[in-house]
Amino acid sequence: MSNPLQEAFNRATYPVIGHGKRNIGVLKDALDAYDGELDSDMYGAGRLIEDFQSKMAGILGKEAAVFFPSGTMAQQIALRIWCDCKGEKKAAYHPLCHLEIHEQRGLHELHGIEPVLLGGKNRLIGLADVQSLDESVSCLLLELPQREIGGQLPDYGELEAISAYCRERGIALHLDGARLFEVLPYYRKSAAEICELFDSVYVSFYKGIGGIAGAILAGDAEFTEQSKVWKRRHGGDLISLYPYILSADFYFEERFPNMERYYDGARELAGFFNKCHQITTLPEVPVSNMFHVHVSLPKERLEPLLVEIYEETNVGITHVLRENGESSCFFEVSIGDRYALIPREELQRAFALLNEKLTFSL
Amino acid sequence: MSNPLQEAFNRATYPVIGHGKRNIGVLKDALDAYDGELDSDMYGAGRLIEDFQSKMAGILGKEAAVFFPSGTMAQQIALRIWCDCKGEKKAAYHPLCHLEIHEQRGLHELHGIEPVLLGGKNRLIGLADVQSLDESVSCLLLELPQREIGGQLPDYGELEAISAYCRERGIALHLDGARLFEVLPYYRKSAAEICELFDSVYVSFYKGIGGIAGAILAGDAEFTEQSKVWKRRHGGDLISLYPYILSADFYFEERFPNMERYYDGARELAGFFNKCHQITTLPEVPVSNMFHVHVSLPKERLEPLLVEIYEETNVGITHVLRENGESSCFFEVSIGDRYALIPREELQRAFALLNEKLTFSL
Repeated sequence: MSNPLQEAFNRATYPVIGHGKRNIGVLKDALDAYDGELDSDMYGAGRLIEDFQSKMAGILGKEAAVFFPSGTMAQQIALRIWCDCKGEKKAAYHPLCHLEIHEQRGLHELHGIEPVLLGGKNRLIGLADVQSLDESVSCLLLELPQREIGGQLPDYGELEAISAYCRERGIALHLDGARLFEVLPYYRKSAAEICELFDSVYVSFYKGIGGIAGAILAGDAEFTEQSKVWKRRHGGDLISLYPYILSADFYFEERFPNMERYYDGARELAGFFNKCHQITTLPEVPVSNMFHVHVSLPKERLEPLLVEIYEETNVGITHVLRENGESSCFFEVSIGDRYALIPREELQRAFALLNEKLTFSL
Repeated sequence: MSNPLQEAFNRATYPVIGHGKRNIGVLKDALDAYDGELDSDMYGAGRLIEDFQSKMAGILGKEAAVFFPSGTMAQQIALRIWCDCKGEKKAAYHPLCHLEIHEQRGLHELHGIEPVLLGGKNRLIGLADVQSLDESVSCLLLELPQREIGGQLPDYGELEAISAYCRERGIALHLDGARLFEVLPYYRKSAAEICELFDSVYVSFYKGIGGIAGAILAGDAEFTEQSKVWKRRHGGDLISLYPYILSADFYFEERFPNMERYYDGARELAGFFNKCHQITTLPEVPVSNMFHVHVSLPKERLEPLLVEIYEETNVGITHVLRENGESSCFFEVSIGDRYALIPREELQRAFALLNEKLTFSL
């Protein structure tokens, strides 16, 4: 199947989003930094995995951490542990939570946990939503930033209030921190300070960090020990997870210091988009390295305009458009290493052309 | 914790078992064979994963195949699909099946499936055992070879009879083929010929093949499509599985042609063991590249003798001993690339010394 937008994006010299191509060179580059004699981890044991787990526990300010092949696995397990602990198989989360829309109802099918959808599809979960919760809910998952609504964040004060309320009511609070490192510049907090508000935390290594795959689940030692048993049950306790661990560590060291730059880039770029006719970004001013771009044109009309822009300017803006009703569409932007590599004049030319085409299409 | 046997084994110039050290050089060597520009697989899609799945479907003679991060995940899912299909959550397998002893009861905890243990702990499942099954069992898992009893195999005729019986009774038959490639020289059959007797098949890429991790689950297309949904639910549908896929393919090409040599080596080596006092192997004549070595000495008495032998001869026989009651112990041997690299005189010296020490210890 031909996909002109994707193909034009792939040909563009200056893609705006991400760190780079997801090819096997990403892993080769990471492995080049390590000696071939380094011993594999073995079913969750060995220095290679234990050292990384300790390092991440420290960064997240938790007693212990466990490396998982995926966040899907880590988060289902976190919610299962909290539900078993509280004796009620009910977990609350946002209607556009990863568990609700991307995991084929695994939480229910494998763990028998009933999700309680909290807040609206177009807004963040607030303290008032949490206060409305039935007391029987065992745990609440908050995603920072809330990806599916453009990567929005609650005020830090709201977050503290939610945390305090949950502690008072005995509701375990779990952080979906797939993009936690990416929000630190906005909150002006350390990861550990934010995680202190939560009982358990998941972070990912292939979003802003740009690793191959893999996740860390952190909490107190009793929680993480239980999570290892469930990791074995899920089939995630592989004999060797080192391809993911080594690349996670390598790219963490490379990119964790860049989060402020990605955040600044996202704010600048959102500004460029917002100056164009028929475009608004969500949030208007990004609070992380990501945001959504909403365009008041049907997908079929925007696509050829974008292809022309990529071909004329060599700047690639997005590889995919998602429909948003009949008359508009949107796409996700996340800023990584590539953004800083685009010559300013090329970027300005692309946006001038985008604005011109959108004005003309009114 | 000091472990003299493991340490002496690690220092030995000529380890008898396995292919080599499990260090990250194993992955580096495999990746060296591929161009860095090769695109990653993406959540189960892309040429890299699809090509390997097609190749394995062909080799196993099945309509389709799906790559999984682990056999634990693949097999639970296979049994779940068959149980859902037949409408009864009961699966039969050997008392020392991987699912029974190594997976923290994941099949029950995640899938609510009740295991029906078939046959005895010290022997293979036979046709008579299968005939004794209650009709409500949805599926039967057979492991070829049965690892925990030394890697034993039923006669091929018995296997055919079990398969025919299961088909007649509507019991789905699943193959735990973690070491399937390793038994082909004994049966003198192709993988596809053996798999034809089964409705679904799992094979592993880090036993005889010596890859990093990963598994294939194969069956008809309806079965494999369902398995992809469950793979997502389990958290196994990683954005990138290529570190495992590429190494699986690389070492499959390298070692699949060597299975006869590993098998011959196992038979020869078992002969050396059986000539020693106080030693018997199980099976007496191996039917794959593996067997167990039973020694009529307590573990604490055998350990220092082995350490002496490793130090005097530079041949390392095993890194671990397992207790078998109070007065005997055993260990597992699996033959890989290393065996052929041992100079004959060193091997003979090691066995002469082993026999001498065991005779002396009578």
